[in-house]
Amino acid sequence: MIEKLNLTMLTDYYEITMANGYFTAGIADEIGYFDLFFRRIPNNGGYAIMAGLDQVIQYLKNLEFTEEDIAYLRSKKIFNEEFLQYLSEFKFTCDVWAVPEGTPIFPGEPLITVRGPIMQAQFIETMLLLLVNHQSLIATKASRIVRAAQGRPVMEFGTRRAHGSAAAVYGARASYIAGCAGTACALADEEFGTPALGTMAHSWVQMFDNEYEAFKKYTEIYPTNATLLVDTYNVLKSGIPAAIRVFKELDPPVKGIRIDSGDIAYLTKNARKMLDEAGLEDCKIVISNSLDEYLIREVISEGACIDSFGVGEKLITSKSEPVFGGVYKLSALERDGEMIPKIKISENTEKITNPGFKKIFRFFDKDTDRQLGDVIALRDEPLPTGDEFEIFDPKDVWKRKKITNFYVKELQEQIFDGGKCVYESPSIDEIKAYCVGQQEKMWDEMKRFENPQTYYVDLSHKLWDLKHKMIEAAKKETPVAEG
Amino acid sequence: MIEKLNLTMLTDYYEITMANGYFTAGIADEIGYFDLFFRRIPNNGGYAIMAGLDQVIQYLKNLEFTEEDIAYLRSKKIFNEEFLQYLSEFKFTCDVWAVPEGTPIFPGEPLITVRGPIMQAQFIETMLLLLVNHQSLIATKASRIVRAAQGRPVMEFGTRRAHGSAAAVYGARASYIAGCAGTACALADEEFGTPALGTMAHSWVQMFDNEYEAFKKYTEIYPTNATLLVDTYNVLKSGIPAAIRVFKELDPPVKGIRIDSGDIAYLTKNARKMLDEAGLEDCKIVISNSLDEYLIREVISEGACIDSFGVGEKLITSKSEPVFGGVYKLSALERDGEMIPKIKISENTEKITNPGFKKIFRFFDKDTDRQLGDVIALRDEPLPTGDEFEIFDPKDVWKRKKITNFYVKELQEQIFDGGKCVYESPSIDEIKAYCVGQQEKMWDEMKRFENPQTYYVDLSHKLWDLKHKMIEAAKKETPVAEG
Repeated sequence: MIEKLNLTMLTDYYEITMANGYFTAGIADEIGYFDLFFRRIPNNGGYAIMAGLDQVIQYLKNLEFTEEDIAYLRSKKIFNEEFLQYLSEFKFTCDVWAVPEGTPIFPGEPLITVRGPIMQAQFIETMLLLLVNHQSLIATKASRIVRAAQGRPVMEFGTRRAHGSAAAVYGARASYIAGCAGTACALADEEFGTPALGTMAHSWVQMFDNEYEAFKKYTEIYPTNATLLVDTYNVLKSGIPAAIRVFKELDPPVKGIRIDSGDIAYLTKNARKMLDEAGLEDCKIVISNSLDEYLIREVISEGACIDSFGVGEKLITSKSEPVFGGVYKLSALERDGEMIPKIKISENTEKITNPGFKKIFRFFDKDTDRQLGDVIALRDEPLPTGDEFEIFDPKDVWKRKKITNFYVKELQEQIFDGGKCVYESPSIDEIKAYCVGQQEKMWDEMKRFENPQTYYVDLSHKLWDLKHKMIEAAKKETPVAEG
Repeated sequence: MIEKLNLTMLTDYYEITMANGYFTAGIADEIGYFDLFFRRIPNNGGYAIMAGLDQVIQYLKNLEFTEEDIAYLRSKKIFNEEFLQYLSEFKFTCDVWAVPEGTPIFPGEPLITVRGPIMQAQFIETMLLLLVNHQSLIATKASRIVRAAQGRPVMEFGTRRAHGSAAAVYGARASYIAGCAGTACALADEEFGTPALGTMAHSWVQMFDNEYEAFKKYTEIYPTNATLLVDTYNVLKSGIPAAIRVFKELDPPVKGIRIDSGDIAYLTKNARKMLDEAGLEDCKIVISNSLDEYLIREVISEGACIDSFGVGEKLITSKSEPVFGGVYKLSALERDGEMIPKIKISENTEKITNPGFKKIFRFFDKDTDRQLGDVIALRDEPLPTGDEFEIFDPKDVWKRKKITNFYVKELQEQIFDGGKCVYESPSIDEIKAYCVGQQEKMWDEMKRFENPQTYYVDLSHKLWDLKHKMIEAAKKETPVAEG
């Protein structure tokens, strides 16, 4: 089972063939720089949410090849015995910088930057991508769904449709960070403190002679958690009348009904009316049927009477777009103390990488505190100061914009220094509060579900000049092929 | 990290509130029957593939509440102390029957049937669904992709885009079962023996002065694994010429090139021509760029020259439809030794469950060995024999069909007997061979990507009569609500 798995070997096989290759070629300890970034926001949204860093930290802290791992690799008969010896004593010594969890992120930005011996910095590629891709995907989707609910609590209810155990637990974590009120997943609550909630399935109701008996028994046992599932037979004809009868008889301090099927707007409006007429204005209505941001927006606009939402498969799989396309690319080498920027050229302009050792500046308006734009700069560039800063579109350089009345924050923080973790992860509730706060700093235009305003992510003059020069140079010299 | 997680608590919170409720209500030991089944085949396909059973078995064998779990539950202040005591001594005692992994499966069929004390049989719902939903989803998608490749090997390459660690490892497992030749995931190979493969990323090429140097060094180190990534700069102008030069100079026993970008048909046709003209007819061409069954079918029909495929995110997330909608429903109770079938009524006919303790018959043609149809029957019905068997559509009962010249197999096997595992899981290669063999027994019409022939899954007369009677009874008696 998954709990016995050693995640060090959870890597693409080519990371190992390359590591052994660097080792055998005698260049394993050359210092390289890698950036983890993504190219496109899922669902054509206006922003994504960074998540998964805490699991990246745990992974890097626990890198270790067991005897079984070494034996497995030896059995492949392609790896250098000295390399296997090196792995058995493996020690992670890289520097790592990253954007904190919960931060709104944009295409092209180095979310994680790794500097260290090429063999190590390359090896960790697969897991860094897997962890950040997964949790950022779910956090981004959750952020959309929570926004659609307009302040009503959203619970993550998707455990049974998650892609395996880790997807359930870390999906619940990512959803919570982005703004969900809790989860159905008990283990996520136990591990992370993401509040778990849940009451009954239809089978509970079927176990009793009728809904009244089922609801009464439940309410007697859980007076402070009496959310009754009213759609086993007929919501309006039997479920709600039975719930009303029980609430009247037992008057539990917490009253709720959950509807898991049928037409949401029609049923909730009628349910609200029946409950109110029975004097149960304090009874909450929970909905949990194939929801996502689009359906939630729709039923709210139709006037559905809903107090909270349980969202399942469409959140935990990010069904509308289940892939977050983070990549991990070499951006520089250090040779004899000199920095050699590296670029990956592509005929597709958007796939050309940003060379060099970089950082991200984020500009905020001094008065409104709104996010104004980001600039990717080289690491040695100073924090922009003064009253005015000109940014320009890296693709259409004639598109220029003057930012005024701003203050600036650097987004990356140092996480590892020479293999030692120097970052103290915030608590999950701190991450959530930060994430919710940062989302409030974005203009509403960026948060639209359709055709959101594109946020400025520009390059500094210095980085743009470097990139431009390298592209020109690459065009001139076709790499030598024939001898 | 995930390896320390205790999966017993990976459950929806309501399974625990219900368990405590059954315990407190004094009905925890009533015997119930649950069926795990699904309602719709992903991607409107003609069949799905059962997978995940081995992980279900491991989960059930390892059910155990730790002291920390009990302390966590106690902190909620809603659970009966005697119930917590019971959990701390929990012992799984249910009977379980299941359809073996690798079997083609169809909507409505009980893939897993659980019989046991209601509290236990209910509690395991979430994990059974999670495990079977995930692996069946990926196995079903992999089966489609492998079929599209028409005999060319397909490698699962999606680890970095998987939804967390378990999705990567078990996704690789499910892909292999359904017909993939291997995976990029080293850990899946180490754990399950799904062959891992991989050579180099673009960063390997970027580490050297040019492609020739990069390829030469790689081929010297891995002469038996020399598949060279030729699209870092320009496939036809630099990548392939450099590869040809290295292959000519070093003549490694295994020669291959991999193309990860650009137009597949155009590039592979030209690559093949260049390789052949250089006398490298034995050099294989591997493609790995945003592939799925549709694109693979398309490029093959365009005459692309491809020897094998690496398929990433669209397989590991089943991107075209990332949800397998398995559900778990109460089908019967035993009271005083008497079987009381249970049914869940819905206005949506397809959501009405099949009552009672059931099994599945699969009919095969004696001569062609092709699958003819399935019949869901009550557990005490004998295996159909004789020369002729009439099946009928459970929705449109006038649709009848006579099956002749058949032999029959029962699909479910017993897995647990009174909590004891009585099933020996086949090896993964046995499962794969079985799965590939079973797929060959299906008519091609069922395997179409668009509008496949709907396979017969009918009910036995006896089950249909029972279901019909229960629906009629439910219509007459509205459950008592008002007192």
